[in-house]
Amino acid sequence: MTPHHDGSSLYVSNPSPALGETVSLFVRVPHGNLIRRMHLRSVRDGEPVFGEAVLDRRDATGEWWRAEIEVRNPITPYRFLIRTVSGAVRWLTGWGLTSYDLPDATDFRLVAHAPGPDWARDAIVYQIFPDRFARSAAADDRATPDWAVRCDWGTPVAGHGPLAATQLYGGDLDGVAEHLDHVADLGADTVYLTPFFPAKSNHRYDGSDFGTVDPLLGGDQALVRLSEAVHARGMRLLGDLTTNHTGDAHEWFRSEKDFFYFNSDGGYESWLGVPSLPKLNWGSPELRRRFVKLAQHWLTYPYGLDGWRIDVANMTGRRGADNLTHEVAALLHRAVRQVRPDAMLLAEHGHDATRDLDADGWQGTMNYAGFTRPVWSWLRADELPFPDFLGVPGEIPFRDAGEMVSTMTAFSAQTSWRAFTSSWQILSSHDTPRIRSVVGGADRHEVAAGLLFTLPGTPMIFAGDELGLSGVNGEHSRTPMPWNETDGWDMRTLARYRALARLRRGTRALRDGGLRWVHAAGDLLVFLRETADDIVLVAARRAAGPPVRVTGLAPHAWGDNLYGGAEPIKAGVDGSIEIDGDGPTFQVWSVRQHPKGC
Amino acid sequence: MTPHHDGSSLYVSNPSPALGETVSLFVRVPHGNLIRRMHLRSVRDGEPVFGEAVLDRRDATGEWWRAEIEVRNPITPYRFLIRTVSGAVRWLTGWGLTSYDLPDATDFRLVAHAPGPDWARDAIVYQIFPDRFARSAAADDRATPDWAVRCDWGTPVAGHGPLAATQLYGGDLDGVAEHLDHVADLGADTVYLTPFFPAKSNHRYDGSDFGTVDPLLGGDQALVRLSEAVHARGMRLLGDLTTNHTGDAHEWFRSEKDFFYFNSDGGYESWLGVPSLPKLNWGSPELRRRFVKLAQHWLTYPYGLDGWRIDVANMTGRRGADNLTHEVAALLHRAVRQVRPDAMLLAEHGHDATRDLDADGWQGTMNYAGFTRPVWSWLRADELPFPDFLGVPGEIPFRDAGEMVSTMTAFSAQTSWRAFTSSWQILSSHDTPRIRSVVGGADRHEVAAGLLFTLPGTPMIFAGDELGLSGVNGEHSRTPMPWNETDGWDMRTLARYRALARLRRGTRALRDGGLRWVHAAGDLLVFLRETADDIVLVAARRAAGPPVRVTGLAPHAWGDNLYGGAEPIKAGVDGSIEIDGDGPTFQVWSVRQHPKGC
Repeated sequence: MTPHHDGSSLYVSNPSPALGETVSLFVRVPHGNLIRRMHLRSVRDGEPVFGEAVLDRRDATGEWWRAEIEVRNPITPYRFLIRTVSGAVRWLTGWGLTSYDLPDATDFRLVAHAPGPDWARDAIVYQIFPDRFARSAAADDRATPDWAVRCDWGTPVAGHGPLAATQLYGGDLDGVAEHLDHVADLGADTVYLTPFFPAKSNHRYDGSDFGTVDPLLGGDQALVRLSEAVHARGMRLLGDLTTNHTGDAHEWFRSEKDFFYFNSDGGYESWLGVPSLPKLNWGSPELRRRFVKLAQHWLTYPYGLDGWRIDVANMTGRRGADNLTHEVAALLHRAVRQVRPDAMLLAEHGHDATRDLDADGWQGTMNYAGFTRPVWSWLRADELPFPDFLGVPGEIPFRDAGEMVSTMTAFSAQTSWRAFTSSWQILSSHDTPRIRSVVGGADRHEVAAGLLFTLPGTPMIFAGDELGLSGVNGEHSRTPMPWNETDGWDMRTLARYRALARLRRGTRALRDGGLRWVHAAGDLLVFLRETADDIVLVAARRAAGPPVRVTGLAPHAWGDNLYGGAEPIKAGVDGSIEIDGDGPTFQVWSVRQHPKGC
Repeated sequence: MTPHHDGSSLYVSNPSPALGETVSLFVRVPHGNLIRRMHLRSVRDGEPVFGEAVLDRRDATGEWWRAEIEVRNPITPYRFLIRTVSGAVRWLTGWGLTSYDLPDATDFRLVAHAPGPDWARDAIVYQIFPDRFARSAAADDRATPDWAVRCDWGTPVAGHGPLAATQLYGGDLDGVAEHLDHVADLGADTVYLTPFFPAKSNHRYDGSDFGTVDPLLGGDQALVRLSEAVHARGMRLLGDLTTNHTGDAHEWFRSEKDFFYFNSDGGYESWLGVPSLPKLNWGSPELRRRFVKLAQHWLTYPYGLDGWRIDVANMTGRRGADNLTHEVAALLHRAVRQVRPDAMLLAEHGHDATRDLDADGWQGTMNYAGFTRPVWSWLRADELPFPDFLGVPGEIPFRDAGEMVSTMTAFSAQTSWRAFTSSWQILSSHDTPRIRSVVGGADRHEVAAGLLFTLPGTPMIFAGDELGLSGVNGEHSRTPMPWNETDGWDMRTLARYRALARLRRGTRALRDGGLRWVHAAGDLLVFLRETADDIVLVAARRAAGPPVRVTGLAPHAWGDNLYGGAEPIKAGVDGSIEIDGDGPTFQVWSVRQHPKGC
């Protein structure tokens, strides 16, 4: 193991400091690394400054070095310079140890902007696509709108063609409220609803009015009832706000020319050229004013949403020479905090969100880039029923555990630990194939779910994944929940999700712990999650193979299995243990160690 | 050799396109790479879009693939996705080929903001510290100001202590004008003067009036005379503007409280806490107005400077929660272009400039991070007469050629090719030890100079380096030019600088060519600079060693030696040649090849 630092509380005395605060930073130097000197480099008003780190203490795993940093700027980048007794000179950044110089992009960083809410740190999010989750009795009485094709709950979902957006299954918000037992039993505590505004599609990302709840979902009062039911259980409720575009049926599109990008010939800019989704122009002060009020409206009585997921945040405010994204994010952040200091504000970003986070706006992102894609490419089935990789042409590549970790690190290294852990880890969503179809079976599905619940970041479960449902693209994955066909439920997968959620909830290291990779190659990934009092070892295998001996624990460390059923671990004097060759498998152990080694 | 792209004209049909323009991009695929498909990924309004690349043509070195990109945003990031016939999937970005996903930070990019001037692309810059370059006869008559300690030209330079800033040798602008022959004979065509404003130090970075030329340097009329002399030779003249701070003797510091950061108790912010250098507050509209006028004043008749080097650009506008740097850069860029569309605007940045370039402000930077440091760490002497590494604690590390190239690539990959090549490559400056003291002797000095003149970027020569002068830190390196002690000139080094400058000037590939690394390990660096019509091969060795066979040329390519005296090259059918074991040595060859291979 090499010297390590990350942004968790094990290494940073205050991960959300105020401007002017001094924070203690620690580097853990495992046994076997002989350090001559260590410096902290931070960047202060654009200029690097160095301070010497000192040896703070020793424990069973090695030495802890400490340095103090003043939080001078809203974003304070830092890294460590390490000289070994043999004369080697290394930088330690979020990208790991390097023997060459590199720019600040992968520096660790402290962020003094207002952080996300405390409750979000421990959340487990359950994503519901309202039309497909559950129908209340009242749903039967509603008329079918012109644009819709009414479907029975058992009708196969169209994955493409015009039906994909017009099949109306009639799920509604009272239906959601009636099934909160399922959500709670699963262990999720935060319900995220894709849009509930009136629209001309089943997905409602073409909103025609952001001021009212779609009557097809039960109208405003149904949202009030759902919100009360959710909060009565101590759970949270999130909405979905489309800031990049509206539907062309939106009243603004007729009356507020300044809110959109119209050409002189009456043509207009739209989302990826789709004419029904005219793009909003955030240069308009009046648009900003309206959105602030809307964002606040639904967070307050009697609706009381606990935050927003922002749709197409990556494109919002960007168009040609316009780049207003950070302004919009900051505006909405201020707006939601004004009425609800504990509100969550999370950005959809299927691409690279690293430059949009940490900037006093979005608290986190949907981490497709740094979690979904790498997990998929490690666990993908040999044969896939779909041909693309979340918009990247060609099939999901086959990648080994080392490449998976390189991808995860490449993205996490370019944000603060806080933004990284506030982001949603996703195995699938309403915009992707389902994880079950990606991995091809229950065993690798368990490995994927294991990573979802044990790596840093907020787990988000797309409703139905826990039942082992399948789907080959976003539209096709919007499966009606088979409440009445429990024969089709994969009860083993459901039990695993429940057990993993319980494990996460009961294990502080899985929520707040730092992350050290122990082994990442081929079929095997092993890592540690650690707080000061709680250490967990995780081993994920995608396939059977030879046993592998890994090092990184304290000498003679030991511990019980917490998930997966393997034998207890007992490390040798060198801190090594053998991971056996069974697979696919997912195993979690607690780790105990003698306080001072032995 | 692996598939390659860079921002040079060999691979990009227009490196400075306008918004809305479509540009052709090419990837060179050397023989031995079997490509199944290739896609271009660009980012459009924040969203990735893919287009298929097509095989455009074949030549002696391999295949050329082509894709078209629309310049939609002021900065348009792009990369390539390559699938080989064996199923491997790779990204090609400025960081090279990777088998994992990575954020956009290292994407290639097209920039639609106004580019730097054409003349700067081919410039060779000569840096003059006016007090130490040359005295005209008039200098003898000038009174010594209170702050100064008058020195004879032959007095040793104080490298530290109070004398470092107060020794006054009395060089002046007419002295510069009298020695332009030397500059021209060296092959430089752009004179960059460190500040010429009145101040209370020999370096004048504590300016007390930006509206006049220091009478100690001959006053405004001396600048007019120098400008005329420089321009009469077809050369260019650059000034040095301090935007981060003034001297505490500046009249603004008494009369314009809003221009600075004063506390309620009368204390104030200053550069790195040095009280004589109060920091400017760019939140002041009036300060902005004054600076625009000043920046314009000296660029116009009768002074006619051709541009500015901006001092401490990395800190300018940054202080606590203020981050106005990009606003200041854009303001000054607009200001200088308004009066002189061909003006150069270059940022001092000793740290990491990558996030400050390409943003419609600074055209380039002083590339200490991506050139000086890596070259120093490869060529450093075994024993050094100074202990630090441009502010990094500890000696310059020993690094091999691979680590040098990794550093260079890590920085160049995070800017446009245009900003990279518009930046100044520097072996030493008035702020550093001299290269001769870093490398310890004439032979490695030649290797360093060779890299200066053959790698992409604008060579900047600190006056005196060409004579082999030494210096152990910035102050100590501000050596008076020994005009009358020619016995002390290293004529061999001077001849090499002249030859290398001539080579660069006469070889288009060295100015405009792309860059492909052929070999970078241990003591040996080999690379190609290439335009469509002109190919140059460079081999730099820091020490003697075994011969090394390198590949990467076309089959049976051949060529004469252009610099260094080695035998002509003649490649085998596999495009390989042997680099012999002599060293330290620096060799350049022209490369000719059969148009279609053979």
